[in-house]
Amino acid sequence: MIKIVLDAMGGDNAPKAIIEGAYLALEEMDEIEITLVGNEEAIMPFYHEHPRLSLKFTTEVIEMAESPVRAIQKKKDSSIVVGMNMVKNKEADAFVTAGSTGAAIAGGTLLIRRIKGIQRPALAPMLPTRTGGQLLLIDCGANVDCKSSFLKQFGIMGSIYMERVMGIKNPRVCLINNGAEEEKGNALTKEAYQLLKNTDCINFTGNAEGRDVLSGDFDVAVCDGFVGNVFMKSIEGFAAMLMGMLKDSLMSSWKSKLGAILSKKAFAALKKKMDYTEYGGSPLLGINGCVIKSHGSSDAKTIKNSIRQAELFIKRDVVRVISEGIAVQIDPEEEE
Amino acid sequence: MIKIVLDAMGGDNAPKAIIEGAYLALEEMDEIEITLVGNEEAIMPFYHEHPRLSLKFTTEVIEMAESPVRAIQKKKDSSIVVGMNMVKNKEADAFVTAGSTGAAIAGGTLLIRRIKGIQRPALAPMLPTRTGGQLLLIDCGANVDCKSSFLKQFGIMGSIYMERVMGIKNPRVCLINNGAEEEKGNALTKEAYQLLKNTDCINFTGNAEGRDVLSGDFDVAVCDGFVGNVFMKSIEGFAAMLMGMLKDSLMSSWKSKLGAILSKKAFAALKKKMDYTEYGGSPLLGINGCVIKSHGSSDAKTIKNSIRQAELFIKRDVVRVISEGIAVQIDPEEEE
Repeated sequence: MIKIVLDAMGGDNAPKAIIEGAYLALEEMDEIEITLVGNEEAIMPFYHEHPRLSLKFTTEVIEMAESPVRAIQKKKDSSIVVGMNMVKNKEADAFVTAGSTGAAIAGGTLLIRRIKGIQRPALAPMLPTRTGGQLLLIDCGANVDCKSSFLKQFGIMGSIYMERVMGIKNPRVCLINNGAEEEKGNALTKEAYQLLKNTDCINFTGNAEGRDVLSGDFDVAVCDGFVGNVFMKSIEGFAAMLMGMLKDSLMSSWKSKLGAILSKKAFAALKKKMDYTEYGGSPLLGINGCVIKSHGSSDAKTIKNSIRQAELFIKRDVVRVISEGIAVQIDPEEEE
Repeated sequence: MIKIVLDAMGGDNAPKAIIEGAYLALEEMDEIEITLVGNEEAIMPFYHEHPRLSLKFTTEVIEMAESPVRAIQKKKDSSIVVGMNMVKNKEADAFVTAGSTGAAIAGGTLLIRRIKGIQRPALAPMLPTRTGGQLLLIDCGANVDCKSSFLKQFGIMGSIYMERVMGIKNPRVCLINNGAEEEKGNALTKEAYQLLKNTDCINFTGNAEGRDVLSGDFDVAVCDGFVGNVFMKSIEGFAAMLMGMLKDSLMSSWKSKLGAILSKKAFAALKKKMDYTEYGGSPLLGINGCVIKSHGSSDAKTIKNSIRQAELFIKRDVVRVISEGIAVQIDPEEEE
């Protein structure tokens, strides 16, 4: 049995959608057990007994606006700290949360801690590509100031994750850059390019400009967490903007209104394709355990998909594979 | 008369679209004179006499793939070098080119040179916003490695440009960052935030996350050239991707196909709104003259709009205003 701790308190739709997601997951997956962690009065209205569902009550809640590191250190009886500690103490295999991204990163790093040889854990969301595939963006916000050696490790970890969990053979790794040519880049990406190029265990295919990242030509896109954050939020915002403008435009005449009604299914199909909720959550890679950060606006289905990711993460032994992959790469001078 | 030098050789549709753009501009604007610069055999097939159009023939062409700095230094008889030198020597007021961005930046910086006190010139494209307005993104590729003091100057220059050329009163300046709160950011943006906040001559409204940059809440978005490049190319690529996927989706059934036909005008209206060709070119701000970089795929209308921008740039005396604006800001230690 794979033991998953699920944060009942995190996310815009908690606790209802989270708990519903737990039941969906239990229905679909036979080899998991779930422990719901959170405040009793929040959980109980949505809870009903299930042979593979247990409860662990906490008294504190980490709010989105709190300083993540301080919250992790102070709120020992919050769902995030309790859940992380269960993974750390091997009482559970994986922790899934839709709560504060900062707290998930801080908790994973401070409580579960880094794999030996890993300089920085990274948060790695999955994005839909033009050709219907998926791309792992690593890092997306855990590390806003990076050294090139961090980026090399992101490439290795991302490649391992895509191969083991997502079943992509020999994943194509690119570096997000301001030009496709090898000599392009800022100080960081120029150095990182050379390191990635000389990393034998990955299939590094070179630089990708912003416009090509989601083309379908790549499976893993490496960048520092600042650039990853700007990249992901920009396209997220731009998609909403474009859809809003299209709606305004379609509503401006009866003819186009009728057209929009006839095309309704096509719009819905596109929306589904672009929908992050289909893709589950972002693993925090590089720590000694499995933490999956589900999107803040996760619904029950997203939570179920995030739990599925956690299950695969454990079954495919991602921590051990990353640990072994990094061990052969360790340059004693790089380690901190 | 405002004297504009137009690069006949630059851009995907040169020389035809460029020269057609020149005639369009001459028709619309009475107070300009244009000098077309480029190779004789390229220009002549599309040329006919006009009282305010003159020619200057060159023999060399800077290709898109060339190293910009080397090309500027070596190809003295290329349209870009000759055009830039005409601005430098006050034979012309402004240079408009749809050629290599790198060469335009290198040429502007090496030949026309920086305004006293400006640490780095910046390329500043205009992007459409959700609310139908425009946003100046500064810097977008001229400086991939920035100090915070550069970003402060980008804020000042961008603000001056939007006020003088685009007629926006008290432009709202934001800093592109990985979070909205003041304490968010990487080392660079944390420092830049404090500098921008303490710059009295601009209306600094704080951080903008990727998703909010184009919301319509801001007129100028400050970032380093690497982030600006990734931001702009990402949304450009994402728009194309989304439209492509929507098209596939609409073509998947006869009903949605019919819907698409009925909605054709609405799609066209949206496309027009999102179309950079409507917005002309990107000024290279911070040099001792006016250089407008028009998009590589400029058509005649884009060229005309870029010429319009150059005209306003000169009429509104942007170089002098930036020069005065920076003079009061100069900290002798910051200067390089």
